[in-house]
Amino acid sequence: MNAMLIDDDRLFPADSRARSVARALYAHVSNLPIVSPHGHTQAAWFAKNEPFPDPATLFVQPDHYVFRMLYSQGVSMDDLEIGQLVVKQPRKVWQIFASHYYLFRGTPTRIWLDYAFQELFGLAERLSEKNADHYYDIISERLNTPDFLPRALYERFNIEVLATTDSPLDSLENHQAIRDSNWNARIVPAFRPDSVVDPDFPGFAGLVATLGEQNGEDSSTWSGYLNSLEKARARFRSLGCTSTDHGHPSAQTADLSNSEAAGLFSSVLTGRANAAQKELFRAQMLTEMARMSVEDGLVMQIHPGSVRNHNRTVFERYGRDMGCDIPRAINYVDALRPLLDRFGNEPKLTIILFMLDESTISRELAPLAGHYPCLRLGPPWWFHDSPEGMMRFREQATETAGFYNTVGFNDDTRAFLSIPARHDVARRVDCAFLARLVAEQRLDEDEAFEVAHELAYGLVKKAYRL
Amino acid sequence: MNAMLIDDDRLFPADSRARSVARALYAHVSNLPIVSPHGHTQAAWFAKNEPFPDPATLFVQPDHYVFRMLYSQGVSMDDLEIGQLVVKQPRKVWQIFASHYYLFRGTPTRIWLDYAFQELFGLAERLSEKNADHYYDIISERLNTPDFLPRALYERFNIEVLATTDSPLDSLENHQAIRDSNWNARIVPAFRPDSVVDPDFPGFAGLVATLGEQNGEDSSTWSGYLNSLEKARARFRSLGCTSTDHGHPSAQTADLSNSEAAGLFSSVLTGRANAAQKELFRAQMLTEMARMSVEDGLVMQIHPGSVRNHNRTVFERYGRDMGCDIPRAINYVDALRPLLDRFGNEPKLTIILFMLDESTISRELAPLAGHYPCLRLGPPWWFHDSPEGMMRFREQATETAGFYNTVGFNDDTRAFLSIPARHDVARRVDCAFLARLVAEQRLDEDEAFEVAHELAYGLVKKAYRL
Amino acid sequence: MNAMLIDDDRLFPADSRARSVARALYAHVSNLPIVSPHGHTQAAWFAKNEPFPDPATLFVQPDHYVFRMLYSQGVSMDDLEIGQLVVKQPRKVWQIFASHYYLFRGTPTRIWLDYAFQELFGLAERLSEKNADHYYDIISERLNTPDFLPRALYERFNIEVLATTDSPLDSLENHQAIRDSNWNARIVPAFRPDSVVDPDFPGFAGLVATLGEQNGEDSSTWSGYLNSLEKARARFRSLGCTSTDHGHPSAQTADLSNSEAAGLFSSVLTGRANAAQKELFRAQMLTEMARMSVEDGLVMQIHPGSVRNHNRTVFERYGRDMGCDIPRAINYVDALRPLLDRFGNEPKLTIILFMLDESTISRELAPLAGHYPCLRLGPPWWFHDSPEGMMRFREQATETAGFYNTVGFNDDTRAFLSIPARHDVARRVDCAFLARLVAEQRLDEDEAFEVAHELAYGLVKKAYRL
Repeated sequence: MNAMLIDDDRLFPADSRARSVARALYAHVSNLPIVSPHGHTQAAWFAKNEPFPDPATLFVQPDHYVFRMLYSQGVSMDDLEIGQLVVKQPRKVWQIFASHYYLFRGTPTRIWLDYAFQELFGLAERLSEKNADHYYDIISERLNTPDFLPRALYERFNIEVLATTDSPLDSLENHQAIRDSNWNARIVPAFRPDSVVDPDFPGFAGLVATLGEQNGEDSSTWSGYLNSLEKARARFRSLGCTSTDHGHPSAQTADLSNSEAAGLFSSVLTGRANAAQKELFRAQMLTEMARMSVEDGLVMQIHPGSVRNHNRTVFERYGRDMGCDIPRAINYVDALRPLLDRFGNEPKLTIILFMLDESTISRELAPLAGHYPCLRLGPPWWFHDSPEGMMRFREQATETAGFYNTVGFNDDTRAFLSIPARHDVARRVDCAFLARLVAEQRLDEDEAFEVAHELAYGLVKKAYRL
Repeated sequence: MNAMLIDDDRLFPADSRARSVARALYAHVSNLPIVSPHGHTQAAWFAKNEPFPDPATLFVQPDHYVFRMLYSQGVSMDDLEIGQLVVKQPRKVWQIFASHYYLFRGTPTRIWLDYAFQELFGLAERLSEKNADHYYDIISERLNTPDFLPRALYERFNIEVLATTDSPLDSLENHQAIRDSNWNARIVPAFRPDSVVDPDFPGFAGLVATLGEQNGEDSSTWSGYLNSLEKARARFRSLGCTSTDHGHPSAQTADLSNSEAAGLFSSVLTGRANAAQKELFRAQMLTEMARMSVEDGLVMQIHPGSVRNHNRTVFERYGRDMGCDIPRAINYVDALRPLLDRFGNEPKLTIILFMLDESTISRELAPLAGHYPCLRLGPPWWFHDSPEGMMRFREQATETAGFYNTVGFNDDTRAFLSIPARHDVARRVDCAFLARLVAEQRLDEDEAFEVAHELAYGLVKKAYRL
Repeated sequence: MNAMLIDDDRLFPADSRARSVARALYAHVSNLPIVSPHGHTQAAWFAKNEPFPDPATLFVQPDHYVFRMLYSQGVSMDDLEIGQLVVKQPRKVWQIFASHYYLFRGTPTRIWLDYAFQELFGLAERLSEKNADHYYDIISERLNTPDFLPRALYERFNIEVLATTDSPLDSLENHQAIRDSNWNARIVPAFRPDSVVDPDFPGFAGLVATLGEQNGEDSSTWSGYLNSLEKARARFRSLGCTSTDHGHPSAQTADLSNSEAAGLFSSVLTGRANAAQKELFRAQMLTEMARMSVEDGLVMQIHPGSVRNHNRTVFERYGRDMGCDIPRAINYVDALRPLLDRFGNEPKLTIILFMLDESTISRELAPLAGHYPCLRLGPPWWFHDSPEGMMRFREQATETAGFYNTVGFNDDTRAFLSIPARHDVARRVDCAFLARLVAEQRLDEDEAFEVAHELAYGLVKKAYRL
């Protein structure tokens, strides 16, 4: 057992020459405020400011990174109470988790958790079956103190701005409540219209109808539907929203004539569309969203290439977002062409591309972002939000796209307590990459300091218009 | 010329901090017994225990890693006597090989050979045209001593268990003979049914008929065919077999109804099936094999994605397995879905996935194995069974799948004398990877020792049920 | 600001053990003559030997690596006078470039430019908005001295042979003029027939007609067309040409019967062919080119996998080669099979394969080149002609293809002044790779010296028959 869970030099290069540069660069950026432009925390936490419940509910049950690994090694999702509204036996769930903690060796989950255990809860011994109860007691106790209320943590984490991800049908009442309170924090929504632009979303037609009603439009017509979306975007913007987000199966875009699009909309709305037509509709909607962004200035994020709910049994029993999404090979270069033909050279448009298929970084994404004025590269996402993943991203993107066509870090997390850890990993890995460039005399040290600051703070504010 | 062919620190990181950790980890695992769960040695060697013939027949003629490189640089396969039953001019073949030994610089073949030359034959000068005769004489002389008989080498190599790869039509008489002898070694068959489940295999229909005859079933019917396979598996299990192996062109699986499958079987057996139907049949058979594995407990290995016999001229003249197989891009995420829909959550099933397309490691394989309880990742295969290939595998798989969804090392070799060298390379590279994690403070040193032991010994025994 | 733009140890490993080996290897090869077998310099420069114009015309306007990055960050191509025959306000263009020089941090362009600035122009302060005028003045002044005339630079650069890239319709008068002058240099054409073998090339039919006229053949017939190409190749060979080059969208090859090919030719020439037929024609022409190469000994280069002119708006306004080409995923293993079935084992044929899709290196290219006698791997191309790209190429190709199935470096540049810098980067990265192999005891040091020499000088001369 070690006396500290995390080391001050973690994630820095082993080599002394590069390590000393990395240390200096990190010291320069480690205390910068956190800008979190994309994630899945809940505005309700900050509106209500109630204590987080027990350790299992906080760290295990909602985190598919955690329970997918346990499940892969034969742990029952029922034993972990996955999908339950309230965890009934949190100490038992915690025990199971603790006794399998060794499974996370070498994973980012381990780094995030150890950071939280040490920095937030003062724990210094590696979690194991043996000390599970001790951990449980310490964390439970702290969670009930004022310092661990959501707003207190937000301030302690030195967050400058935090974006949630919200449906166009969301009332945003929690966002309004935060604004109405006299708490001085910047928590903003992001506009994620998948449920009303993807015909494969369960209940699509009904949701589109609701969208129309909420916005005083007849959303059964193509023009009324588009008007509804524009009004919903305006409502989001009035609460500080600066970006949209699109989680499509592919990056396919289309540029249909107005009459073609209207006919297609009618087909998908009435359930007559086949799979290809549904894909074409999603494709067309990305281009429509780009058009609206040119008009209203919202930054577009595209998160493509995930096969959702791959495990049929788990999906049928536990529902969506249960760790069963698997990436698939993807093509950006042909798929984005219809949208880029129309808006690719538009100076007012920013589209941030994310990837789950690393073979596209050097082949497609860096060449695209290194040319088109509207394109930027999002940070490594999901399975690649990890030290090796981030390093490969820099190694494969930088030589063609440079640093300035990237947009800093996204924590993209449901796990609020992991936010400082995740940003810390990103800053360390970026400093490690820059340190290697300096150590190999490929970048001057004064420049590395400037770039480190941009990667940790400057680029995200500019790209997301925050 | 150097005084030693191989260095004690070979394959360890150059950096001193990481190197010293690697040395310590390696010392902990270097003497562990070899568990070899998948390979292509011949049971006859151990049943008969006769001396290996000359150096050319041992090192050049059967090793497609060796002669494919020579051929790529213009050496004639006829001059190497490839495909001949007996090498007529072994010293001449050896001379050609020796004079081209520089071609293997930077390749794993070089590492394996130098290890055998030094550790088994006491040679200390790098092989070249000049010392070819000296090498030939030394090796020839030793091969005729009792210490170099197959059983003596098996013991010297500290092999705990060795699996061969065998057709369901094989009598397994050599396996039986080993068991019947009073030699205390564990050599077991593995069940590789490609010849009787792949309609493109030369002579498929006749082989299926033989399968039925051997097992007392009418294998011209779908049920008789399946019964034959089940009986053949039982026969293999009775001789210690714990695994099956499937070398399909793709990872495609299917889940047809019984009547659809029976109809398809009839089509492929009578030669009426087109290419798509043959692919569908192979796909269905993977699912059938999974079903049988759920029942009888044999671990499934899937080795997909190789275009066999790519060089038409070489194939027509020299036949199969002549170094002319080339990998092709592959999709696991959609291809495995039918099988996984049916058995993916089955706790009694273990499927080990291998890959020749490295772009799938982080994109598909690690996410799949990091979720499905039945899936494990096989070690880097064939062209990737190499220091860089193994390192990339760990770098790309670990953050999502962890260490515990991998299964240790396979030597997968026809070259018996290379077995210790190959396991040694794997252990060194794994220690080098772990040493970097320790040096970068991403893993505690006590954990690295535990993981190194698992990667060298523990995981393979568990995954293959040995 | 640093006192030197480039460091003597640049691009060497940070680790001291490997760095000292890299230094020694580099010292061994740094002064070898430059052999440049593929690039886009203009024979006219050397025929006329006139001064290069101003800094903007030299470094910014013709270099799509430079202006694509500026464009991606919102700089107007009009402000850079891209596409203008003469740059009217070169100092203004230079100012824009200088003030955005920070965008190139971490890119190879930065390394090439700094090298030229320091080594050719004696500049020692990093280019910025502040010193833009100073740079402009210094460079302008030097360009007008005799030492900076094209022939003087050619000699100063220690170039042994330099190949241009030329259309079969080119008169090669500049090549003839160089030969006719009493200047002792070896500048040779390369045969690039895309414009007369690709039906999608603008004006294809007219260019084919011209080809026939120039060669005294009726190029409206299949046989006359082939004869024209053969005669054009002979004309190129008479001026020192040793290679052809083919920039097709894919690597597809075909092996049609003569009558099928003749019919297809008629279709494409008369504009009746659809997209698939045009692709088939390009495929057939690669095989025809291979056949001619078997006969006349010209080495074939294939540069596949680029989607040309991806940005429609830029293409329509500024034309071809404006930095808007984007790579696409590519398959070699099936695509090359028709050609390889026919000529793959032909000892007199050399085909050099290039790639823009790095996922193919370990999966397809190294296995193909490590087997087929006619295949060699070209160096990392275009977006991958960079330190990280070169390193990944060696890491992913060497273990299967070895060093001797690669062909040294191509600078592939339009930017004559960047040639020494580009070769220097390649030599340094190769030495860094070899140094790591030595430091990790995977290659003996004496072998590394031999291989370094081959990579810098020996292999290119042999592969290109220079």
